[in-house]
Amino acid sequence: MNSEVGINVPAKIGMPVSEIETPALIVELDVFERNLKKMRSIAEANGVLLRAHAKAHKSAGVAFRQMEIGGAHGFCCQKVSEATALVEAGIDDILISNQIVSRAKIERLVALSKRAKLRVCVDDPLNVCDLSSAAMAEGTVLECLVEIDVGAGRCGVTHGEEAAKLARLIADAPGLRFVGLQAYHGPVQHYVDAEKRNATFKDILKKVQETLVALVAEDLDCPIVSGAGTGTFRKEATSHVFTELQAGTYCFMDAAYMTLRDEHGGPEVPFENALFLLSTVMSAARAGAVVCDAGHKSVAVDSGLPKLVDVPGATYVSCNDEHGMVIDPNGHLSLKDQIRLIPGHCDPTCNLHDYLIGVRNGFVETVWPVTSRGKLW
Amino acid sequence: MNSEVGINVPAKIGMPVSEIETPALIVELDVFERNLKKMRSIAEANGVLLRAHAKAHKSAGVAFRQMEIGGAHGFCCQKVSEATALVEAGIDDILISNQIVSRAKIERLVALSKRAKLRVCVDDPLNVCDLSSAAMAEGTVLECLVEIDVGAGRCGVTHGEEAAKLARLIADAPGLRFVGLQAYHGPVQHYVDAEKRNATFKDILKKVQETLVALVAEDLDCPIVSGAGTGTFRKEATSHVFTELQAGTYCFMDAAYMTLRDEHGGPEVPFENALFLLSTVMSAARAGAVVCDAGHKSVAVDSGLPKLVDVPGATYVSCNDEHGMVIDPNGHLSLKDQIRLIPGHCDPTCNLHDYLIGVRNGFVETVWPVTSRGKLW
Repeated sequence: MNSEVGINVPAKIGMPVSEIETPALIVELDVFERNLKKMRSIAEANGVLLRAHAKAHKSAGVAFRQMEIGGAHGFCCQKVSEATALVEAGIDDILISNQIVSRAKIERLVALSKRAKLRVCVDDPLNVCDLSSAAMAEGTVLECLVEIDVGAGRCGVTHGEEAAKLARLIADAPGLRFVGLQAYHGPVQHYVDAEKRNATFKDILKKVQETLVALVAEDLDCPIVSGAGTGTFRKEATSHVFTELQAGTYCFMDAAYMTLRDEHGGPEVPFENALFLLSTVMSAARAGAVVCDAGHKSVAVDSGLPKLVDVPGATYVSCNDEHGMVIDPNGHLSLKDQIRLIPGHCDPTCNLHDYLIGVRNGFVETVWPVTSRGKLW
Repeated sequence: MNSEVGINVPAKIGMPVSEIETPALIVELDVFERNLKKMRSIAEANGVLLRAHAKAHKSAGVAFRQMEIGGAHGFCCQKVSEATALVEAGIDDILISNQIVSRAKIERLVALSKRAKLRVCVDDPLNVCDLSSAAMAEGTVLECLVEIDVGAGRCGVTHGEEAAKLARLIADAPGLRFVGLQAYHGPVQHYVDAEKRNATFKDILKKVQETLVALVAEDLDCPIVSGAGTGTFRKEATSHVFTELQAGTYCFMDAAYMTLRDEHGGPEVPFENALFLLSTVMSAARAGAVVCDAGHKSVAVDSGLPKLVDVPGATYVSCNDEHGMVIDPNGHLSLKDQIRLIPGHCDPTCNLHDYLIGVRNGFVETVWPVTSRGKLW
């Protein structure tokens, strides 16, 4: 890492938070570690493995803490290049929770599977043929999960017999091994209505169980049922059906997950916000409002605007590419003031940054590169 | 550049477009060059300088073509680190079209101004003091533009006398030189109603002219009036008031600018789309729809979803972080098919990528690094 703070790196170890160049993502390490321990205790208490989703942070530094402190047994990635960068950094157990279909990507996937414990999801017979050919050509065996559509309507085959047929195809294909099911429902993670989340999860579970029955009829073992996100993971953890939890955001949290309430009105997600976008007031030319230096290029707004904290009455109300508009009716904010924003959506926000800056008690303790940033393919 | 295609780079020179790893941004060079020549001819015909905004692409490779083919006399940047990366790559005339207020950033700005022709915008008397002290400490003179709020309600002082007072403060401050006005209105670039665009531009022009009158009363020369975006640049070009055009998107275009119509119903913006996000169908498990590999992490949706081209009846209808949902009622698309998407918004989309791949006649001609990607501060 180039140590010249300000051109290539926004912070250095030992620096006070007030001197970090902005906009920059900071992680409050005390909170982060509490989140890791909480997830570990829930996973262990329920006898499920934590396969944390690295798409949330894309950082080997964070992943190692998830293993050391948070009991993670492995990770998920969405892309082969994302996984490759993490393997290069020393992470050796990765499920590609996604379909890999093009020839070049399959070749990279198979090559990577010879260097690390690697699995991939499948939802198409043609893909089974392509994966099998590539694994055979390399003289290796690739472990595959059948992805079933548990109601999200994205990737995945129909649950039940169709899924079992695909599993049979994999089991019979040279160079492949069927090891389990991928059953992830993205939208339910963010359903506001707790009853709708519960009802949807029941349906997810029913689809998985029907598929397990169909697999028995095909005489196929299914050691792995992998799924869950930060919004539902306690349901999967206590289901006695899922064997792996794929939550990612839990370690940092974001404004969208913070709003979820359970059926009793309490927080649905038992984690605290550890991730903040540090920003600076760059213009105070108008009364009652200021402009900060954080916009679309440093914070994702697909799940809502970031939440400004610690400034009574002030609200982040809109943004452009490099500017954030803040209403400040009480006039608390002045030029050069540093502010903290909770990103609306963790994953695409981390994806915008090259570094995550770990801070404790007001000082920088670590600077984690976003290892897989830009690894889109 | 690491030449191993697929891990660090999505393409190499000479490769057919069909083999580019996806998702990846490609630039159709024939179209790009036509756009550059069109902008050059309009700027030259109207005697205004083109100071192309590098925030659109953040790439030195693109900037050099804008100079060589497109007649660009200089560039704009939004951030000091963005400008620094471009100076390191050989670009030597940059206006920071933004306020730089924190101590560390000002020090970097002043240091950079000793290596390249650099200007900065100012909208606050306190900032004048800080810039002056820093320039004095380095024994240099920093050229400043006063940013006026021409109606966007973002940064900028009130036009007229208040702006002239700030200009006077700059002119009298040791280490600073007042050289002109920054007059940029972001929202008007995208106003759908042509009459509203025209009326707003008249108001912008009035505010600039009143400020010029106030500067005369202060006995201050104002050699530069800088502003304009891709949505309005012809108005600024023909205004006889603006001396510089700051358009950025014009070289690539995007889906949002494509929709603008002039008062006669023709295209408001005379450029063609040169930028496409190349994507691949990664799941075709459901009838009438497919899933492609391009979502929030590879295409910005703040100005609308990307437009799928060349597939009759098919539409990109929603996305998650790494997935794009495509309705395909006619069943044209199959697993592994490569598709092209026009990004809704050019600037934050380029910001997501490490490379822009220049293609011509179906083959890769150049691979431009996004020089200032991640340079947020």
